Formats: sequence, structure tokens, C-alpha cells
Amino acid sequence: MGYVYWVSVFFFLFRRTRADFWNSESLHTLRGHTSTVRCLKMSDSSTAISGSRDTTLRVWDIKTGLCKNVLVGHQASVRCLEIKGDIVVSGSYDTTARVWSISEGRCLRTLSGHFSQIYAIAFDGTRIATGSLDTSVRIWDPNNG
Amino acid sequence: MGYVYWVSVFFFLFRRTRADFWNSESLHTLRGHTSTVRCLKMSDSSTAISGSRDTTLRVWDIKTGLCKNVLVGHQASVRCLEIKGDIVVSGSYDTTARVWSISEGRCLRTLSGHFSQIYAIAFDGTRIATGSLDTSVRIWDPNNG
Repeated sequence: MGYVYWVSVFFFLFRRTRADFWNSESLHTLRGHTSTVRCLKMSDSSTAISGSRDTTLRVWDIKTGLCKNVLVGHQASVRCLEIKGDIVVSGSYDTTARVWSISEGRCLRTLSGHFSQIYAIAFDGTRIATGSLDTSVRIWDPNNG
Repeated sequence: MGYVYWVSVFFFLFRRTRADFWNSESLHTLRGHTSTVRCLKMSDSSTAISGSRDTTLRVWDIKTGLCKNVLVGHQASVRCLEIKGDIVVSGSYDTTARVWSISEGRCLRTLSGHFSQIYAIAFDGTRIATGSLDTSVRIWDPNNG
């Protein structure tokens, strides 16, 4: 019994070591969200932005692994996001989309109109398109939506 | 009765003709996956890559409609993918991300560390970011993570 135990320990350790050897490990683990990360994009070589079921977006410095900002405002899961320059747009299960300034870390505009969850968003810097469970696609002007 | 029959035939034919006229038909139907296609990107003007609940990715020649490669390795649904040059990165419900060479059709690296399903992936050619049900975002070096 003691023999089986030590052989098991050996194989467990060996398996872990072998896995570490062949597989890559992450450079950073970015912690802060309190629920599933549902969407993720890079905005430049040092910045990633994530959206979560915890209702927030987080702006991360991927070189240092630090959270630079938490974008608070949505009332339900953040399902999709797109970035163009300093602007990130997010679609949420709270039926709204939001336009955020990355550098200022604040919500510039809330786009209300859908009757149900937003599942998809597109943004080319000029127009925002959102697709929803309410079956419609809506087009918005980010400056005057 | 004969009158109604021929009128029905006429409208049936007319409807089909009008549908053919107004609707577009697909150029190709790419068959091979054995379960839901969950993610899909184009890598260049002639190549698309799909990820499926059948655990594989498929590389398609969209001009001929032929499958050029099947990327096998994930143990569960392929949920998200991103492409940059010859590299495709995929995130899976098996908790790992994988780095694949499109031209070689093989897995270069497996990124292990998440404790639960990966839902989102971003890749800029230098860094990979993955977001998971385990609430964390991880940053990886595709070459030497």
C-alpha cells in the first residue's frame, strides 16, 4: 500500500513536470473579474479589454499584467465588444450598448432601444451596429446615437 | 378541381422562379464538421478556418470549396479562434488554447493553465490573450510562453 502510494506520487509529479515542459505557461494571469469572461480584444500592443458576465469591462496592461481601469455601468453580462482607437463599444444582456473612452475610463454614451439582449456588435469608427435577441439589427452614430 | 390544380402549379412555379431570382445561393457548402460550427474567420482571400463543437478546426479553400486540413487535438468544443499570418490560435472548452501552423497543419503549442472553459481569445501576432469561465484573463507568448 505504501509502495503504491509512492509510485502514484512519482507519476503525479512526473506528469505535472512533463506537462510543464511541453506546454506553455501564461506570462500573466489577470485577475479581477468575478464571473465568466465573455469577450476580449486587444486595442494596441500593450492593452487588452475584456467584458464579463460580472457586468464590467476591464482595461488591462498586458505588459505588466495590471488592470488599468474598470468600466462600470452595464446592468447585466457584457456579451460583445469592439475597439477602434480610443473608443470601445460594448453590447450587453441589459439590452443596451455603451460607448466608452479608454483613456478617460468613462462611459460617453448609452445606446438604448433594443427590447432584448444584445449578442453582437460591430464598429468601424463611424457607425455602430448591434444585433439582438429581439431579432433586429440597429445602426447607431457613436457621437449622436 | 383541375382548374385549382393548374393555378397551384402555376403559383408554385412562379414562386420558385421569383425566389431563384431574388435570393442568392451559396457558392459552396463546406461539409466535414460533425457538430455545430462555433467560430469562423478568413485568413486570406482563399482560406477560411472554422472551429466546431466536434473538437476540430478545419482549413478550407473557399475558391474550390475543399477542406485543406483538419486540425485535431482539442478534447472539447472549439469556441473561438483568431488568425494572424500563418498562425491560428484557438480557445476550447477543454480549458486549453492551441497555436497551429496553417501551412504545416499541425499544433505548435498547447497553452494550459485555465481551470475552466475558454470563451474568448485575442491575438495580435505577438501576444495571445484568453478569457475563461474561471473569471481570469491570461496572457501568453505564442513562441515561448
